[in-house]
Amino acid sequence: MQTRVKRHPERGHYDRETVDAILDAGFLCHLGFVVDGQPYVIPTLHARVGDVLYLHGSPASRMLKEMGKGAPVCVTVTHLDGIVLAKSVFNHSVNYRSVLVMGAPRSVEGDEKWDALHAIVDHIAPGRWEEARQPSDKELKTTEVVALSLEECSAKIRSGPPVDSPQDRDLDVPIGVIPLELVRGDVA
Amino acid sequence: MQTRVKRHPERGHYDRETVDAILDAGFLCHLGFVVDGQPYVIPTLHARVGDVLYLHGSPASRMLKEMGKGAPVCVTVTHLDGIVLAKSVFNHSVNYRSVLVMGAPRSVEGDEKWDALHAIVDHIAPGRWEEARQPSDKELKTTEVVALSLEECSAKIRSGPPVDSPQDRDLDVPIGVIPLELVRGDVA
Repeated sequence: MQTRVKRHPERGHYDRETVDAILDAGFLCHLGFVVDGQPYVIPTLHARVGDVLYLHGSPASRMLKEMGKGAPVCVTVTHLDGIVLAKSVFNHSVNYRSVLVMGAPRSVEGDEKWDALHAIVDHIAPGRWEEARQPSDKELKTTEVVALSLEECSAKIRSGPPVDSPQDRDLDVPIGVIPLELVRGDVA
Repeated sequence: MQTRVKRHPERGHYDRETVDAILDAGFLCHLGFVVDGQPYVIPTLHARVGDVLYLHGSPASRMLKEMGKGAPVCVTVTHLDGIVLAKSVFNHSVNYRSVLVMGAPRSVEGDEKWDALHAIVDHIAPGRWEEARQPSDKELKTTEVVALSLEECSAKIRSGPPVDSPQDRDLDVPIGVIPLELVRGDVA
């Protein structure tokens, strides 16, 4: 499996419950694809519906030309949870949750496209699909949605306090975790 | 230039002041590389020093094997700033700042490696390089750092309120921006 976690294998998770929770906890993903041997990594928006990840490409040009052609992609979702301060620089780390999904996306049309856009909008801004004006046929035509199966995916998680080497335990260095959180403010 | 912004070209920025500010505003990047035609996108940590972006690979295995071989990579840094609520679903958007850097990284050794690690650690947790125990020779050997020139880079930014279509302006739909911010809490 290409998404198997090789470095720090103890941080790898392969159950869909863990993967889904990480995908559902945010809407920003980074989509990787290849054009003439050059990798591109583009931030875009996603929502999961069952076993499928839907992507909506605002940076459509380069990205979506490659989609639906069967070219392989990698979609990565990462949440930063904390900065881990250890006794030694070497044992400093970051707490995070990430998911990698690999596969070949397919273009989405018709009712599935409508439902996918509904899912993406309500994932980013709950309730807005019903609240705002829904897409016209013309708008739908200029919006691209692709679907990526979750068949090949894995999660990687680091959490908890620093892990210091035994020889460092008595050093007089303050340790701990600085929590990080993406906070939503009030509408302005 | 491969990093030229094609979709929403008005959001593209090519001055180093803008690019540097986005790179310096965070320490999480997504590194894209290709193995046997398959793109991989791996979250990792960065710091900028002058015209160079240093990357420290904790997910070292797959990633760093490809580095220093002259293989092309793409490093993307994205900050989410807000959710943009418009009168129509179609004009909903996200405020963000992102940078793409492309090139072929080189391995970093010796004094440059020491200075790069210093920069990365102090970028993530200011002051910790002096406060914590600094790396031993053995630890340095098991840490990989690569450098990527900022010669080929671009920024893309969306900011400000929703932009509604003229025909939607009188719709009775609340609009605005939900601010998003990655907040650091107190050490615990």
